[in-house]
Amino acid sequence: MKGFHRIKGAEDFYPAMLWQREQVFSAMRAAALNHGFLEVDVPAIESFSLLAAKQGEEIRSQIFTIEKKGEEELAMRAEFTPGFARMFIEKQRELPKPVKWFSIGKVWRYERPQAGRHREFFQFNAEVYGSGKPEADAEVINLLISSLLGLGLMQNDFFVRVNNRKLLQGLLLEKIDKGNLERTLRAIDKRHKVSRNELLKELAFLGKSSQEIVELLDLTFEDLGRLQLKGLAKEGYDELKQCMRLVRPGFARFDLSIARGLAYYTGTVFEAYDSEMRFRALAGGGRYDSLISMYGGADTPATGFAMGYATISLLLARKKLEKEPELSPDIYVAVQDGAVCEQAFSLVARLRQYKKVETDITGRNLSNQLKHANRLKAKKLIVFGKEEAESGLLKIKDMLTGEEKLVQEKDIIQAI
Amino acid sequence: MKGFHRIKGAEDFYPAMLWQREQVFSAMRAAALNHGFLEVDVPAIESFSLLAAKQGEEIRSQIFTIEKKGEEELAMRAEFTPGFARMFIEKQRELPKPVKWFSIGKVWRYERPQAGRHREFFQFNAEVYGSGKPEADAEVINLLISSLLGLGLMQNDFFVRVNNRKLLQGLLLEKIDKGNLERTLRAIDKRHKVSRNELLKELAFLGKSSQEIVELLDLTFEDLGRLQLKGLAKEGYDELKQCMRLVRPGFARFDLSIARGLAYYTGTVFEAYDSEMRFRALAGGGRYDSLISMYGGADTPATGFAMGYATISLLLARKKLEKEPELSPDIYVAVQDGAVCEQAFSLVARLRQYKKVETDITGRNLSNQLKHANRLKAKKLIVFGKEEAESGLLKIKDMLTGEEKLVQEKDIIQAI
Repeated sequence: MKGFHRIKGAEDFYPAMLWQREQVFSAMRAAALNHGFLEVDVPAIESFSLLAAKQGEEIRSQIFTIEKKGEEELAMRAEFTPGFARMFIEKQRELPKPVKWFSIGKVWRYERPQAGRHREFFQFNAEVYGSGKPEADAEVINLLISSLLGLGLMQNDFFVRVNNRKLLQGLLLEKIDKGNLERTLRAIDKRHKVSRNELLKELAFLGKSSQEIVELLDLTFEDLGRLQLKGLAKEGYDELKQCMRLVRPGFARFDLSIARGLAYYTGTVFEAYDSEMRFRALAGGGRYDSLISMYGGADTPATGFAMGYATISLLLARKKLEKEPELSPDIYVAVQDGAVCEQAFSLVARLRQYKKVETDITGRNLSNQLKHANRLKAKKLIVFGKEEAESGLLKIKDMLTGEEKLVQEKDIIQAI
Repeated sequence: MKGFHRIKGAEDFYPAMLWQREQVFSAMRAAALNHGFLEVDVPAIESFSLLAAKQGEEIRSQIFTIEKKGEEELAMRAEFTPGFARMFIEKQRELPKPVKWFSIGKVWRYERPQAGRHREFFQFNAEVYGSGKPEADAEVINLLISSLLGLGLMQNDFFVRVNNRKLLQGLLLEKIDKGNLERTLRAIDKRHKVSRNELLKELAFLGKSSQEIVELLDLTFEDLGRLQLKGLAKEGYDELKQCMRLVRPGFARFDLSIARGLAYYTGTVFEAYDSEMRFRALAGGGRYDSLISMYGGADTPATGFAMGYATISLLLARKKLEKEPELSPDIYVAVQDGAVCEQAFSLVARLRQYKKVETDITGRNLSNQLKHANRLKAKKLIVFGKEEAESGLLKIKDMLTGEEKLVQEKDIIQAI
C-alpha cells in the first residue's frame, strides 16, 4: 500500500500555490460582482444525460463518468453551462431577467494533460440569460476584460478576438453548400494554428471555393462596412457593430475566423489571447440562443464565457504578476516555561480574535521556538514566561526592525 | 431530452444560498488562518487505493467510483484526510513541522440522503502533522471552538465532548478481551443515540461485564482523577488532562463514551454538538498517530477534525444566525436614450472599478428600467440621457432616502 500518487492531470495546491490561486479567483469574483453578476454553485456530479445534451454520446470518452450504483448514469461536470442551464430552467418563471450568474470552480475532462491543460482544472464561468441584445454580449466581453485587468494585466498584454456566427455563416453560405458548413467552420477555427497552405488543404473538400474562403477571412470590419451585406450576414454585422461600440475601447479585434467550433453558438463569439499568442486561449464564449430550449426550458437568449485558470496562471507568471504569498504569522507567542502554558494559550486565544498567531504545540525549548518563529517569518514576537505571567507585562518585538515595546497584557489588543 | 434534474443528494446553490454559505466558509477560513493554519487544496479525484487505504474494500459501496478509462481505479474523495496525508508525505522532508493545514470544499459519499446529510456536501477540514503533544490536540479543539464562535454561535449553543482512546481502551481492557474491543467501542460510540437498555443489549455479547462497562461510562473526569490509573489508561488520562487545561474554558465536557468508531484513532478524540442535541454532530476528530505511516510516510503524529456544513447551516438557521444576503447593486445606471448608450457604458465601466453597478442590457424603456432597479433593490440610481451626456452633470439618487445630488461626471468616483 506504499507510494500513493496524485492522479494524472490533477494538481496539489500547497499553501503558496493556493494563496496565489485565491488571489486570482478573488480578482475574478470582484470583477463579476461589480458587473452585477451573482455567484451560484452547481453540483460537480450531474446526470450523464444532462452533460451529453449538447454534444451527444461522443462526450462519454471525454469526461469522467461514475460507476453506476443507482438507476441513473452520472458523470463529473466538464463545464458549468449544463448545470447553470438546469438551475436556470428550474426557476425560469420566478427569476427576474436578465439573470447574470457566475461560478468559479473545478471541472473535469478526460484529456491528455499538457501545459495549461489538466484533467481536473478550474474555470471562471459567467452567463447572461434573458437578453438577446448586443448590449448583453458587450457586457460579458467587458466582464472578461475587467477580470484580466483586475489581475494586473495591461491593455497591451491581451486582446479579444470578436466575430459573429450569423455574419460568418451568411458570408460562407454565399459560397458553399449548407452541408459543408460545419466542417468549414471547424477548419476556419484553426486558422491561427496552421499555415495558409495547411488551411487551404483543410478546405480542399470545398473545391475551388477554398481559395475564396481563405481570402474572405482577411476582410476587416471596415471592409465589411463597405460591402452591401444582406440577410443573415447583415443581421450579424449589425449585432457585432453595436456590440463593438459598447466594448471597452482598445481591447476587441474583429476576426472573421473565430467560429468557436461548437455548432451551438448562434451570434457574437469571442476568444481572449495573450498578445504574444504564446498560450492557449485565455477565455472563450459567445451567444447561444438555442441553449436553454435545447435543455428543455422556455426559449431564452443567452450569452457567456468561460476562462481557465491554468492558462491565466502561466500568463501571470510570464508577466511576473504573481504576488508573493503572505503566509507568515502576525505574531509568534513563544512559551518560555511549560508551567505557564495555560496562561500563554489564553493570551494566544485572545490575540487570535484579531491576528494570525502562532505558538508552540510541539514542546520545543525556547531557542528552538525562536528558530521556528524565524523560519515562519513571524512579524512580531512575544516571549511568555513566569515573569510575564506574574507581572502582566509583555514585550512585543518587531522582528523586522528589532524594535521592542512593553505593553500591559490587558492593553495588548490595542497594541497589536 | 426534456426535464433534467439535479442528482439525488446534491444541492443547487442559488445566489442567496451561496452568499450565506460563503459567509460561513469565510468565518471558518478566518478562524483557521488566525490559528496559524494554512489553506491547501487536494484533487477531488484520487486513486481508489488511496481512498481505501484506511478502510479497505468495504469503502467501495460508500463512495463514488469512476468508470475506468486508464490503468488506474479512481474515485471521488469522501473526506480530505487521505489527500492531505498524500500531500504531506510527498514533501514530508522539506516541510517545517508542525504542518497545520486546512481545506474547505466538497466531498462525496454514496449514502442515503437525509436532513443534514447529502451525497455531495461540504467539509471544513483541519489537521496538524508532526506534534504528538496534547498541546496540538488542544490547538485543533480550540480552532473548532473559534470557528463556531466566529459564526455567531455562543458558548451555550454548543459543546465539545472530549475523550481519549488510550484511556478508554486501558479501562476497557481491564474488563474485556482484546478481541472484543472494536465491537465494544462501536457499541459505546452509540451511547447517546440509544437507551441504557439498548446499550446493554448491544453489549450483551460481553456477558456479565456488559453492566460494568455501562457503569464505567458514567465516570467523570474527577472520578478518574481519584482512581489509581496505570499503564495505557494513565497515559491517556494524563494526555487528556493536559489537553483539557489548554482548551478554552467552558466548552469541553469529558465523556468516556466518545470512541469515534474508526479504529484508527489513537489518543484524544472529540465531537462537537449543539447544546440541544437536536442535530447530528457538528464536527468530529481526534489524534491518529498511525495515519501517516499507514499511508506509507515516515512515522508522524497527527491530529485534526472535520466539520460539516450541512449540520452547521441547520443550527445557524435554528439560532436565527443566518445573515441577510447582500446581493443588491450599489448603483443602477438607467439609460434614457439608446443614442447615448456608448457614453453610458463608459460611465458604467468606470464605476465598476469601485462599486457593484447594474445597467440595462435588454433594451428596456426607461420606466421598465426603473422598475427593474427597484426589484433589484439598487441603492443608488443615475439616469443617463442626452442631457447628462452633453452637460456632464449627473444626478445621483439615493433610493432609500430619496435624496438627490448633482455631481460632475469627472468627480463621480469621489461622490459614490
